[in-house]
Amino acid sequence: MTRYELDDLLDLATRVKGKRPGQVLGGKTLGLLFFQPSLRTRVSFEVGMVQLGGHCINLSSDDLYELEPQEQAIMDGPAEEHVKDAARTLSRYVDALGIRAAARTGTWERDRQELLLRSYAEHASVPVINLETPFEHPCQALADVLTMRENLVSLKHRKLTLQWCNHPEPKGLGPTHSVLQLAALMGMDITLAHPLGFEVDDEVLERSKTTASDAGGSVRVSNDHKEAAKGAEVLYARSWGCTKYWDDPEREAMVKRSLQDWRVDEPLMATTNNALLMHPLPVRRNVAATDAVLDGDRSRIYDQAANRAHVQKALLMQLLK
Amino acid sequence: MTRYELDDLLDLATRVKGKRPGQVLGGKTLGLLFFQPSLRTRVSFEVGMVQLGGHCINLSSDDLYELEPQEQAIMDGPAEEHVKDAARTLSRYVDALGIRAAARTGTWERDRQELLLRSYAEHASVPVINLETPFEHPCQALADVLTMRENLVSLKHRKLTLQWCNHPEPKGLGPTHSVLQLAALMGMDITLAHPLGFEVDDEVLERSKTTASDAGGSVRVSNDHKEAAKGAEVLYARSWGCTKYWDDPEREAMVKRSLQDWRVDEPLMATTNNALLMHPLPVRRNVAATDAVLDGDRSRIYDQAANRAHVQKALLMQLLK
Amino acid sequence: MTRYELDDLLDLATRVKGKRPGQVLGGKTLGLLFFQPSLRTRVSFEVGMVQLGGHCINLSSDDLYELEPQEQAIMDGPAEEHVKDAARTLSRYVDALGIRAAARTGTWERDRQELLLRSYAEHASVPVINLETPFEHPCQALADVLTMRENLVSLKHRKLTLQWCNHPEPKGLGPTHSVLQLAALMGMDITLAHPLGFEVDDEVLERSKTTASDAGGSVRVSNDHKEAAKGAEVLYARSWGCTKYWDDPEREAMVKRSLQDWRVDEPLMATTNNALLMHPLPVRRNVAATDAVLDGDRSRIYDQAANRAHVQKALLMQLLK
Repeated sequence: MTRYELDDLLDLATRVKGKRPGQVLGGKTLGLLFFQPSLRTRVSFEVGMVQLGGHCINLSSDDLYELEPQEQAIMDGPAEEHVKDAARTLSRYVDALGIRAAARTGTWERDRQELLLRSYAEHASVPVINLETPFEHPCQALADVLTMRENLVSLKHRKLTLQWCNHPEPKGLGPTHSVLQLAALMGMDITLAHPLGFEVDDEVLERSKTTASDAGGSVRVSNDHKEAAKGAEVLYARSWGCTKYWDDPEREAMVKRSLQDWRVDEPLMATTNNALLMHPLPVRRNVAATDAVLDGDRSRIYDQAANRAHVQKALLMQLLK
Repeated sequence: MTRYELDDLLDLATRVKGKRPGQVLGGKTLGLLFFQPSLRTRVSFEVGMVQLGGHCINLSSDDLYELEPQEQAIMDGPAEEHVKDAARTLSRYVDALGIRAAARTGTWERDRQELLLRSYAEHASVPVINLETPFEHPCQALADVLTMRENLVSLKHRKLTLQWCNHPEPKGLGPTHSVLQLAALMGMDITLAHPLGFEVDDEVLERSKTTASDAGGSVRVSNDHKEAAKGAEVLYARSWGCTKYWDDPEREAMVKRSLQDWRVDEPLMATTNNALLMHPLPVRRNVAATDAVLDGDRSRIYDQAANRAHVQKALLMQLLK
Repeated sequence: MTRYELDDLLDLATRVKGKRPGQVLGGKTLGLLFFQPSLRTRVSFEVGMVQLGGHCINLSSDDLYELEPQEQAIMDGPAEEHVKDAARTLSRYVDALGIRAAARTGTWERDRQELLLRSYAEHASVPVINLETPFEHPCQALADVLTMRENLVSLKHRKLTLQWCNHPEPKGLGPTHSVLQLAALMGMDITLAHPLGFEVDDEVLERSKTTASDAGGSVRVSNDHKEAAKGAEVLYARSWGCTKYWDDPEREAMVKRSLQDWRVDEPLMATTNNALLMHPLPVRRNVAATDAVLDGDRSRIYDQAANRAHVQKALLMQLLK
C-alpha cells in the first residue's frame, strides 16, 4: 500500500463515517470464512455490508469441509476439498471473499507465509480480504490509524509506542506487524517495546524502518517497557508470540512467567505525554492492562473497534463499487 | 412491565400480525447471541427483523471467545474477553442485542441472578432483549398471553393451570416464571401445579400473588395435578427444574422417576372446562403430554410458536422505530 | 418430474442466468437446515435468494436440538424435539425449507428411505427442498443437466458415461442417482460404469431404464471403466458407496484398496469422443481425477457449481413467486 492509497482510504472512511452512503453495494455479496472465532471482524463486516445495501454470507470451519492448500496434493487424507476448488467455486457466487486464518500450524517460517490466505488469493478471481493471519491484520491497523488520525490530526513525527504486554495464551503478530507498517507509512516516530525473545519478524522490522525513514519518521526497538513509554503520545498495547518457540507454546508460557510487569497501568501511563491508550480487542483485563487505564478517559479501545466498521465500509466501496 | 405497557404491546402485536407494516426498521440491525441451541427464538426473531426491513446478525457460542462476566477479574484464565468489552463493542455496531443464556452454571441462588444477561444489559448502550435465562423467558410469555387473549378475548378471572410435567432432562424455570407473572398482570385465576420439591422461586411467587390480587385475579399452589386441572380453561404444561437440587441433576432425575403420571393426557383434559392446551415448544411427546392432546383440536402449541414472531415484531418496533 | 417440467425449469434457469430478474421474492424467506457441512449448496442458495430480493435463514445441527423422526415415539431419550413439531413450527415462519440429511445412519434399506427428509416433507406445510440425502441430490443434477445442455445443445442420444471413481471416504449415491434419472429423462445414451459390488439402487436403475427408453435413450451398465469411457461425449466422474456394506465402512474401504485405477486421467480422456469432464464438487484431486483433467479445457466442474445458483433461482421462483 502506498501512502497515497492509505490517505485515500482513510479520507473515504472519514466521509463514510456516521453517514449512510446509501445502497451503493446493492446486489453485492461478501463471503466471510472464519477458521477461528471472531466477534468484531464478523459483526463489523456484516453491519458494514448491510448498511451499504449489500449482503454477507458467513461460513465457519464447522460449516466447511477440511481444505487442502498444497498444490498437486494426492488428496487421499482427511481434506475433502482443495482450496483451489473452494476459491474458484466461491468466486462464481460472491463478489469478494474475506478469510480469517490466524491459527498456528507449525513453525514461524511456515506460518509467516500465510499459506491458506495466499492460496485463496491466488485461486480466487474476486478480491480476497485478509481478516487476520499470524503475520498481518490489516483491517485492524487501518481502523487504528484512522483512530489516531482522528485524535492527533497529523501523525507525522508523533510518538507511538507499540508495547508488548503479557497474556496467558500465545498470540499472533498480526496486529503488531500491520500497525507497525501503517504507522511507519504515516511517518510516525515509533518505539517498538518488547522483552528479549519477543522480536517481531526481521523482514517486517527492516521494511518498516525504511518506510518510516522515507516518510520522515523512525522506528527504534527497546527492551525496557518503562523507558519506552516515556513521552509517548500513543501507547498501543498488545501481546504477541515468540517466533523462536512458535511451535512450542509451553516453552513460551514458561518464559512469560517472569514478564508479568509488562502490563499497562496508571503509573506507566503517567510517564507518557498524556498518551492515548490503544489496544485491539479482545483484551485481557488486569493482565495486559488494568481496568483503570482501559476504562480511563484516554482509552480509545472502543473507538478502535467502532472504526473497524467505518474503514471496512470504505474498503468495500473501493473494491466493489 | 405495567399492565398498560403489556396491553399496548399486545395491541401492537395484534395489528402487526398478518400484515406487513413495511420497512419500518430499514437500516436497523439486531445482534443475537446464543449460548444454547435455539430454533423458534432464532428463526422468529430473524424473520421478524427481515419482514420489518431490518437485519439480524446471529452469533453462537462457537463463533465467540469465552467471556468473563465478573467485574475487576484478573483475566489470566480461559476467558478471552470481558462481557463489558463485548457489550460495549457490539453497542457500536448494532441497534439492539438479544442474549440467550439459559444454562445451569451453579446453584439456584447464582443462576436466579441472570449474571451474563445482566452484565450485558449493564454495559451495553443499546436495548438488550432476554432470549431466555433459567429465571425468565419473557418473549415466550408474551406470545403465550397473546395466544390466550386471541382465544379467550378477556383474560380477567379466567382459570389458568400452570402444570408441571415430567421430562428426562433438568429444565429451567424461565417460561413458567414469565407466564406466571404476565398472567397475573392480566388478572387471571392461576393454579400453579407441581409435585412437592418443585416449588418455583419464592420471590417470583410472592410477587405474582400481589400482582394478580391488584389486577383482580389470584394465584394458588397445588401439589395434586388432577385436582389442579379440574375446571381449567387453559392448561399450560411445562417441566421445570428443582431449585433445591439445581446443581445436582442426578438427584433431580432420581426424584422424577416416581413422577411419570405428571403428564397431560386425554383423561386429564376431560376434567377441564374444555381447556386450551398450551406448551412452549420443544415438547417431549408422550412424556410431558401425549400425541393425542398435542395434536388435538384444543392444542394451541403452534399458535404459541407463530405468535413469537408477531409479538417480537411489536417489541422490536417499540424498541427501535 | 416430467420431461415437460424439467424443460420448463431449465428454460427458466437459462433466462435467469446472468440476469437480475429483480426483487421477485421480496419478503420471502427460505430456511436451510444442514445436518452435514456444505459449501456450494449453502452459498448458492443464499446468494440466489438474496439476488431475488429474498432472505435465507441457515441452521446447522449445532444450532438445533436433536430431533426425533419416529412417529408416536415416547421421547424420553436424547431427542429434545420431534421433527413434526420442528417442521410445523418452521412452516409458520418461513416460505420454504431446504434439508441436507446426507449421513449414513444404518443399513442401505433404511437410508434409501430418506426418513428425516420425508418426515419434514410430510409435516411441513411449505415446500421442502432436498439438499442431498444418501439417495438423491436433485439440485446438483439439475445444475448438471443445465451444464450439459449449454454445451451440447440437444441431449437426446448423446453419450454420457457415469463413472465411479475411487475416494478414501464412503460416499452417498445422491448425485449419481439424480443425474442418472434426469439424464434418462433427457433421452441420453447412458453408460453406468462401476466396479462389481458398487451397483446403484435396483429400483433407481430399473426406473431410469424405463424413463430413458420412453425418451428415446438407453441405460447400460459396465464394470470396465476403460471400455465405458470409449466414445463418451460427457464423462461424469463421482465416487459412491457400496450399498451391501453400507453400515460397514471399513469393509468398503478394504474393497476399494484394489480399485485405485478407477480414476480419470488424460489417457482415459483421450479414448473419449473429446468428452466434457464433469464432477460434482468437492473432488479428491489426484484420487478421483487428476489435476490435468480437472484443470483441462474440457473440464466443466466450475460451471456445474455456478449453475447450482442459476437453476436453484429458477426453482425458487417456481415454488415461491
